[in-house]
Amino acid sequence: VTSEDALVAQLRDLIERHQENRRLLNAIGDDAALWQPSRSHRSVMTTDMLVENVHFDATMPLHDVGWRAMAANLSDLAAMGSRPVLATVALGFERGFSWDSISELYSGMLAVAAPNGCAIAGGDLSNAPATVVSIAAIGEVRPSSVKGRGGARAGDVIAVTGPLGASRAGLHLRDNPRLFDPSLKQQALHAHRRPQPRLAEGRWLAAGAAVHAMMDVSDGLSTDLARMCSASLAGALIERVPVAESARSMALARGEDPQEYALAGGEDFELLVAVAARAFQHVAARFRKRFGHALEAVGRFREGRGVFAVKGSGEIPIAPTGWDHVR
Amino acid sequence: VTSEDALVAQLRDLIERHQENRRLLNAIGDDAALWQPSRSHRSVMTTDMLVENVHFDATMPLHDVGWRAMAANLSDLAAMGSRPVLATVALGFERGFSWDSISELYSGMLAVAAPNGCAIAGGDLSNAPATVVSIAAIGEVRPSSVKGRGGARAGDVIAVTGPLGASRAGLHLRDNPRLFDPSLKQQALHAHRRPQPRLAEGRWLAAGAAVHAMMDVSDGLSTDLARMCSASLAGALIERVPVAESARSMALARGEDPQEYALAGGEDFELLVAVAARAFQHVAARFRKRFGHALEAVGRFREGRGVFAVKGSGEIPIAPTGWDHVR
Repeated sequence: VTSEDALVAQLRDLIERHQENRRLLNAIGDDAALWQPSRSHRSVMTTDMLVENVHFDATMPLHDVGWRAMAANLSDLAAMGSRPVLATVALGFERGFSWDSISELYSGMLAVAAPNGCAIAGGDLSNAPATVVSIAAIGEVRPSSVKGRGGARAGDVIAVTGPLGASRAGLHLRDNPRLFDPSLKQQALHAHRRPQPRLAEGRWLAAGAAVHAMMDVSDGLSTDLARMCSASLAGALIERVPVAESARSMALARGEDPQEYALAGGEDFELLVAVAARAFQHVAARFRKRFGHALEAVGRFREGRGVFAVKGSGEIPIAPTGWDHVR
Repeated sequence: VTSEDALVAQLRDLIERHQENRRLLNAIGDDAALWQPSRSHRSVMTTDMLVENVHFDATMPLHDVGWRAMAANLSDLAAMGSRPVLATVALGFERGFSWDSISELYSGMLAVAAPNGCAIAGGDLSNAPATVVSIAAIGEVRPSSVKGRGGARAGDVIAVTGPLGASRAGLHLRDNPRLFDPSLKQQALHAHRRPQPRLAEGRWLAAGAAVHAMMDVSDGLSTDLARMCSASLAGALIERVPVAESARSMALARGEDPQEYALAGGEDFELLVAVAARAFQHVAARFRKRFGHALEAVGRFREGRGVFAVKGSGEIPIAPTGWDHVR
């Protein structure tokens, strides 16, 4: 198996050979599973696991580990245009892990879950060789509002709900602590440790007929845009990546191109949407008025396959450079 | 923190201080969370994590690891009297873990999920320092059929859906491989590696008005009966523990008392129920007719506190001796 996406595709085949999904309404590979608890309702379910020394290390306060783990799940619910309902938490920890540590983890989860209407409804506790936070969350969505990642059409505008790369800059702060002015440092740390899932934005976008597809940017725009293209049987041309200020500053300090730096930055938890071209200006104007920040155009979906970016007067192919848990 | 139950109680306090659970209908501490997706429906959600070298080791085939992880979740849904709908799987594994290994794990999960109507609806993959299988599952239950673990009343018969201790005997087979005749060995191994969640039994029992409380025996009868007593504000007197044949044989081979051995054996995944005394004979007869095995009486709930067992002409207190993930 060469990549996480190839592994997920193989797993989907294996699972679909074994089961009939009468009430499961979408395919494995979307941000969350969609099903129908009753005729007039749709529910979505997602899960996300954070592992010590893989997704975070001892320099990250446990409060923020809890926050990020919950935020990653809520962001998947946001990508489905849903309203969070409840979550369960399976927690693994080494022997001797203290009540204070467990309480700090839960406080971080609650700090982002409670204001977003998501109840923590129980869970499981286990010993483990490292701290593992595995959350599953349920949301509800109106049947008319369901968008997947497979609906993008040639001609649609590629847009994101905010500038990218700040979380990656927060990660790189560890190695480059002196490079930053305090406010950019704060922006990067905050984006990395306490990302805000775009729940209100997700519900608003999902309700609009001009929005054809939606997912969250969790593994980097280059990786996630390729996934949306693949699910939508479309190609994409990137014209301009909106780069967070802290990411631009960190990229330059590291001698990297800011656009490429932001393209590969995971865990931003912005939403990636495909918007009908004729409606984009109108949608973007209403979005800014409602949420006080821009819906930023990145480029266009088009016929064909693959993700390319404008470079000078030509185009270059963009390889997925984001986070892959298998490679 | 001195025990898992104490830890769960502290967590419940922490969580309840932070959130209002408008639509969450039961308290943290039941086998699964109960909520109301629409007026006429009730859903339940549970999660359970298996960790390598904590819950299983390299001698257990990965197929059976997957089976047990899924069965533990389905058993929680059985305890709520619900019908499984779907599950998500978060899987952690070391670098170099092969596709064959992942496929074997999933085949085991599917082998118990699919026949019970539970679809695997997606999940998450991550590197980790050991194999971690974290499943969350959703079920549905009729509003009139909801039983918790808090409904047992003084006078109710304590009953279980099958004899206990076989899973523990399967675990001990590793250390005592020569002690068994082949059919008992098979019974013990099967109970340990491929436990059958009592889903049909759970739904049938939950639908009966004479059943006042229900939970699954996952951490050992001594531990789980103490939990039911505590949730029901009742005491319990054990008269006779139904012991699986393989457990009796293994206990004797180890020089232990078979009843005590079975009392402390976790992971049997039988259901523990409180049944109105006047109805018990009738319920047990119908149960046997329908399922072909006995609903076994263990003793009586009574006023007061604590779990005791009949010993000779007196009583002895029973300490929780089952599995505790914190001690």
